[in-house]
Amino acid sequence: MTIKVLGYAAQSAEAPLAPFEFTRRDPRPDDVVMEVLYCGVCHSDLHQARSDWSGSVYPMVPGHEVIGRVTAVGKDVTKFKPGDFAGIGCMVDSCRECQPCQHDLEQYCEQGSVLTYNGIDRHDHRPTYGGYSQSIVASQDFVLKVPNGMDLKSAAPLLCAGITTWSPLRHWNVGQGSKVAVVGLGGLGHMALKLANALGAEVTLFTRSADKEADARRLGAHHIVFSTDEAQMSTVKGQFDLIIDTVPYVHDINSYMPTLNLDGTLVFVGYLGDLTPMLNTIPLILGRRSVAGSCIGGIAETQDMLDFCGQHNITADVELINMQEINQAYERMLNSDVKYRFVIDMASLKA
Amino acid sequence: MTIKVLGYAAQSAEAPLAPFEFTRRDPRPDDVVMEVLYCGVCHSDLHQARSDWSGSVYPMVPGHEVIGRVTAVGKDVTKFKPGDFAGIGCMVDSCRECQPCQHDLEQYCEQGSVLTYNGIDRHDHRPTYGGYSQSIVASQDFVLKVPNGMDLKSAAPLLCAGITTWSPLRHWNVGQGSKVAVVGLGGLGHMALKLANALGAEVTLFTRSADKEADARRLGAHHIVFSTDEAQMSTVKGQFDLIIDTVPYVHDINSYMPTLNLDGTLVFVGYLGDLTPMLNTIPLILGRRSVAGSCIGGIAETQDMLDFCGQHNITADVELINMQEINQAYERMLNSDVKYRFVIDMASLKA
Ligand SMILES: [Zn+2]
Ligand SMILES: [Zn+2]
Ligand SMILES: [Zn+2]
Ligand SMILES: [Zn+2]
Repeated sequence: MTIKVLGYAAQSAEAPLAPFEFTRRDPRPDDVVMEVLYCGVCHSDLHQARSDWSGSVYPMVPGHEVIGRVTAVGKDVTKFKPGDFAGIGCMVDSCRECQPCQHDLEQYCEQGSVLTYNGIDRHDHRPTYGGYSQSIVASQDFVLKVPNGMDLKSAAPLLCAGITTWSPLRHWNVGQGSKVAVVGLGGLGHMALKLANALGAEVTLFTRSADKEADARRLGAHHIVFSTDEAQMSTVKGQFDLIIDTVPYVHDINSYMPTLNLDGTLVFVGYLGDLTPMLNTIPLILGRRSVAGSCIGGIAETQDMLDFCGQHNITADVELINMQEINQAYERMLNSDVKYRFVIDMASLKA
Repeated sequence: MTIKVLGYAAQSAEAPLAPFEFTRRDPRPDDVVMEVLYCGVCHSDLHQARSDWSGSVYPMVPGHEVIGRVTAVGKDVTKFKPGDFAGIGCMVDSCRECQPCQHDLEQYCEQGSVLTYNGIDRHDHRPTYGGYSQSIVASQDFVLKVPNGMDLKSAAPLLCAGITTWSPLRHWNVGQGSKVAVVGLGGLGHMALKLANALGAEVTLFTRSADKEADARRLGAHHIVFSTDEAQMSTVKGQFDLIIDTVPYVHDINSYMPTLNLDGTLVFVGYLGDLTPMLNTIPLILGRRSVAGSCIGGIAETQDMLDFCGQHNITADVELINMQEINQAYERMLNSDVKYRFVIDMASLKA
């Protein structure tokens, strides 16, 4: 027996997302079956649905910011019971044996982690389908516990936008006394402000638009610096221990590099592509600065982040949409017309 | 009274180096006066003499790989006495008060360290003149002790080429079990091979020329990888903890990035300029890799390096030249026609 599910899928790079019926596997001994309640809408959903990157396979059911209610569990499941609220992020499996996997770094699995959608299950070799659907099935080891009392709809974006900014903050040891700057104020950027602030850092937003100031301060920024204003930029020379660059399209980072402290790091979390204009090595050499990248986060780290958010009363700022509005939401997202994350109310799929 | 000195100077960016008489200051209480015995010839000597970078001031007496014999000391000097062998590297002073200075990172002094030549003394505001000269005067705090029994002429390049590769090896914790790759086999590269090997690392040289293989192995490389051979490059995917990139001219690093391990770093030590072709961020993000830079090394670290070299019987491979041959040496250096560092025998200046 397999579970019949209604979802929304792209049938090709050109087709808008539309209703799609498919089956979920019967739960394996370690599987958790969840009814999807909410699913965040990530930039990479759009990029993969439209085949902007290589490797898109159709039909594709996007969605990797999944919050739901456990409806059934396999016989070996100990972490969850029916009725629990749970989450699934960008990965649903990995090899579990390589060095990164053994060190809670499944996102860097040497065999490649199994993505929540547009991936291939390691056991039945069927495509994985994401959270734009009524239910989802995954191994308990890749399912997160949602802290008690957390607002479910605004928790969804923590599973990708949250962990993607949390992981570098933790890896580069941000805490009390740290100085952190964030480039870009979208889904990732607004989480970076909240999380860096809650970790005790002094937080600066680099932006080009004056109209973001009030919002940035509300979200946790102590300072706003207009990156196109050279005078302002020179006042923050040598200031930052870490710059989290969340901008998802090509952009110049040369003006940010001198604002890093000795041994400071600029970390890309949102842009996959060539750096242009060219990166200049002088600020690297003269301040032992680094340019790095970081990819989502491991499962244990994701749970830590959720627990931290529960304690600090942090969730994302979201705009709830119906499943039927997803194609318009993609267009608005391309125009940065969202504060700061669309979340699909999956109840709309029943209607 | 001031000390009259004969040296070799560039009088302009276009002029060849030629004899130049100038004065050294009388020793201050903390000063050491050295008779220069040997001075290494660094790429940056040539670049600054010819004003390839901004900020060249003439007349310029290059030379920052200086080995000599102490001839006099100021009244407060405790570290040296006349007759001692001593060395001077790239810096002769710094503010001594900023955070980097207080943490033995004078090379990153917030006020800028005082360069051994083409710098300005912090007290008398006169230009500094380097080691292409009969004698040199500097504060004992910026003068290094030469380990007993070390070959003096081949010790000279340790003061720049040695410390410039040693510092990143230490900063990124290279030791037993580390895997290090070196890009470029010149003055810096040959020291990187020797030092990484002596630190216990498994060492690989990336090169384009088959004729470097025997030499590279003799210098400490366990493996040679031809960077233009895609098949060979794919065998070292995900291998290296640290890549030391010593190439002094613009070059593509994109093919090296995937050979870094998770959390691996490629560090520039020799190239100041724009990265072209463009750096692609995908290997950064998918392996939390970094691109960094590193600038020479601090004074305490330089002494550690010299002591380590003394214990491990390491010096540079040098070709001794007369002071009068410096202009031809520059031309040969531009053609990479040196194994692996020219060192000026300063006795030639008396002749
Ligand atoms: Zn995402
Ligand atoms: Zn793995
Ligand atoms: Zn040098
Ligand atoms: Zn200083």
